[in-house]
Amino acid sequence: MVETIQWTDDGVVMIDQTRLPLTEAYVTCRTYEEVATAIRDMIIRGAPAIGVAAAMGVAIGVLRAGEADLDAQVETICDTLAKTRPTAVNLFWAIGRMKRLYDSLQGRPIAEIRARLVEEAKLVREEDIAINRAMGRNGAALVPDGKTVLTHCNAGALATAGYGTALGVIRAAREAGKNIDVFADETRPFLQGARLTVWELQQDGIPTTLITDNMAGHFMKSGRIGCVVVGADRIAANGDVANKVGT
Amino acid sequence: MVETIQWTDDGVVMIDQTRLPLTEAYVTCRTYEEVATAIRDMIIRGAPAIGVAAAMGVAIGVLRAGEADLDAQVETICDTLAKTRPTAVNLFWAIGRMKRLYDSLQGRPIAEIRARLVEEAKLVREEDIAINRAMGRNGAALVPDGKTVLTHCNAGALATAGYGTALGVIRAAREAGKNIDVFADETRPFLQGARLTVWELQQDGIPTTLITDNMAGHFMKSGRIGCVVVGADRIAANGDVANKVGT
Repeated sequence: MVETIQWTDDGVVMIDQTRLPLTEAYVTCRTYEEVATAIRDMIIRGAPAIGVAAAMGVAIGVLRAGEADLDAQVETICDTLAKTRPTAVNLFWAIGRMKRLYDSLQGRPIAEIRARLVEEAKLVREEDIAINRAMGRNGAALVPDGKTVLTHCNAGALATAGYGTALGVIRAAREAGKNIDVFADETRPFLQGARLTVWELQQDGIPTTLITDNMAGHFMKSGRIGCVVVGADRIAANGDVANKVGT
Repeated sequence: MVETIQWTDDGVVMIDQTRLPLTEAYVTCRTYEEVATAIRDMIIRGAPAIGVAAAMGVAIGVLRAGEADLDAQVETICDTLAKTRPTAVNLFWAIGRMKRLYDSLQGRPIAEIRARLVEEAKLVREEDIAINRAMGRNGAALVPDGKTVLTHCNAGALATAGYGTALGVIRAAREAGKNIDVFADETRPFLQGARLTVWELQQDGIPTTLITDNMAGHFMKSGRIGCVVVGADRIAANGDVANKVGT
């Protein structure tokens, strides 16, 4: 399985998504500033993955911070990370979660604060994978057998801590024995479909065909597409969905 | 005005469409083989432009041919040109027209045959421009004033001998004083919209915005688009249209 982001003794290790699919390279962020830069430069992208990165960024920031003026340093760490990608709601959610935990540990020894924040950041990652697997199981039941699944952009393992949201549904359907293949829109202008979705599905041996965005309508009309699974930036209570243009 | 293809004393001169928009370079084809290569390599593209190139290819072939075995040489010239771009119906139409003229000149002095074929090839070009202007005048009446016109691919001056089919309608609407601007789909995978349509409309000072193909639906839904004007590979008697995927 693709490892999008991991906590290691060296720091936060991310696969460099700007270099995929031609090069599988990993970046180690040893400070919260390096984590912020990685988010800003799209080395890591996808709202859930950014949330995990932000949580780990807070943890590594506090781990490396001096004991003096810790509250002010935590403010700076959180502010810096919050400014990286304002469209990713998970970013603010993860920073808020880490900040609330930090506040609840007021007066505790710094070693304990550091340990608890690192533990929490790892938990954010594990929870995200568990959520994706649950989403996959639920979604897989809706995927028609023997047809092609169409997807747009990358809502995959690379956009999350692992397994993926939209691509998690596809993975779970395959694991459930359904005979499906995937058509991936290339997703202009940044080509996340061509560069990331095709690459990660090929890693798992899932038959995947790259199409241009303007071919999607043709294949939907021809009846080949059994269902469409995509990510969403927001889902409103009434079912309205906001996502990348063209979705 | 953009000069897509011209007959000159040196040979058939074409603007090199593979190098636009970064470089405005011209290619001179001095033999029918060079014309065939230019069509195959997409130095010239667009069915009407290819038709003109094929007619000029036959003319230059006969101009350079020896007098012995002329019938066999004309067969070879026509066969070679016919194999360049089998999807362009104008290719076969133009070759057929030149071949019929050649056949009708059996027994005439070779100087006369050559002169008549060159004249006919120039006429094919002039007729194409006249047809585009007539299409433009008729189409312009249908373009809503004060809105944006959406177009896909390049059905412009560059796809024809000049003025353009779809873009001819836009030009005629502007000449008629309509207050319109243009949204051009980039047109994946070969980017004729981004590379050619935007370039040629900018040459004429027509306000043009480049969008990705997957933005077209959004702008049509938002009400900004007053009409869509596109080229067609074929139009059936019942009104069905065949064109590039995504049109």
